[in-house]
Amino acid sequence: MAKKIGVVLSGCGHLDGAEIRESVLTLLAIDRAGAEAICMAPDIDQMHVVDHHSGKEVPGQRNVLVESARISRGDIKDIKEIDIADLDGLILPGGYGAAKNLSDFALKGAQCEVQGDTSSLIKAALKAEKPIGVICIAPAVMAKVAQDLGEKIKLTIGNDADTASALQSMGTEHIDAKVDEIVVDKAHKIVSTPAYMFSARISEIARGIEKLVQSVVEMS
Amino acid sequence: MAKKIGVVLSGCGHLDGAEIRESVLTLLAIDRAGAEAICMAPDIDQMHVVDHHSGKEVPGQRNVLVESARISRGDIKDIKEIDIADLDGLILPGGYGAAKNLSDFALKGAQCEVQGDTSSLIKAALKAEKPIGVICIAPAVMAKVAQDLGEKIKLTIGNDADTASALQSMGTEHIDAKVDEIVVDKAHKIVSTPAYMFSARISEIARGIEKLVQSVVEMS
Repeated sequence: MAKKIGVVLSGCGHLDGAEIRESVLTLLAIDRAGAEAICMAPDIDQMHVVDHHSGKEVPGQRNVLVESARISRGDIKDIKEIDIADLDGLILPGGYGAAKNLSDFALKGAQCEVQGDTSSLIKAALKAEKPIGVICIAPAVMAKVAQDLGEKIKLTIGNDADTASALQSMGTEHIDAKVDEIVVDKAHKIVSTPAYMFSARISEIARGIEKLVQSVVEMS
Repeated sequence: MAKKIGVVLSGCGHLDGAEIRESVLTLLAIDRAGAEAICMAPDIDQMHVVDHHSGKEVPGQRNVLVESARISRGDIKDIKEIDIADLDGLILPGGYGAAKNLSDFALKGAQCEVQGDTSSLIKAALKAEKPIGVICIAPAVMAKVAQDLGEKIKLTIGNDADTASALQSMGTEHIDAKVDEIVVDKAHKIVSTPAYMFSARISEIARGIEKLVQSVVEMS
């Protein structure tokens, strides 16, 4: 039977939700690795809505689960209904949604909190020793959960000094990496890649994500 | 200099806009082919907004250009400002956006009309003998434009009998194709692939789109 890899989405669009390209490239790499993607998201309101043409916040309210369903083509589960026993691994694509909806890292940095259902599932994955892949800014979510559990983990968010420093102040060891590289914390089975933390070509982003997915599937 | 391939988006989400995966896979294949993607969309309201979790229409209004910018990460042009002389080819991903926003094919079938700015650009591309790629349901848009110009073209939308029949009644020759196949009309430099006209794996969709992009870039 195909391995099942959970993909935690956080909306649809990098300024207020999941980074769309990172999410699609993750789904493609999972399928090409012969595994099955199980999409999920929390059933909560987005922090806000951003016009991706102007880059400005606009009035209105959107739901994280409902918008994430645009990427998953409707096939999506409320994250709080997921039992980690049904998954072989977990991957969190990036986008500001990870730092605004799955956590409040965008506002509070190292003092952030992780959304309850998301935190519970990641903690369960760590305890069950299931591999976890975190892309772009999603390592911030991982760092906070590890801090809550008192685990010292190893991650990359690329080479942005301020973000790396915030991760370090949460007790995470930060390792610089290029856009198409991954950092593997073998002890905790955690893989990370910077993706759109760099302003890079989509083919470079894809290479990093392919390596991350391959590593998660191999460790599962 | 890299060839420039226009990508015509129609929103963000397959039920009321551009099919997200087809759009991202198109951008990836263009980059991997060494070409540059120029994203564009018409600055018009969407026909409607669909909740992709429930599948039901919901109140509210979204703009096609603004929502398309989620896929293009903000880097997008109003289609009416595009001069075909600046492009080496044109690709239209699918999703209901092609049949609801770029045209009204979803409502009117063979009696549809194509959105004005979109129709003008496709006509200009045909006249300038620039290659055009159409994915999923976007061949319906292409069929209508060709009918307006009195050109008899060759296309595929997979093997859906009703849709194929609608294309044929617009004067287009329909050729059945599998999800990872393309149909090339060499005389008109038009390439098509069925993509999510089939309920298929994302890796199969990717294979068809890679072939389509390669063909468009080669003919440009």
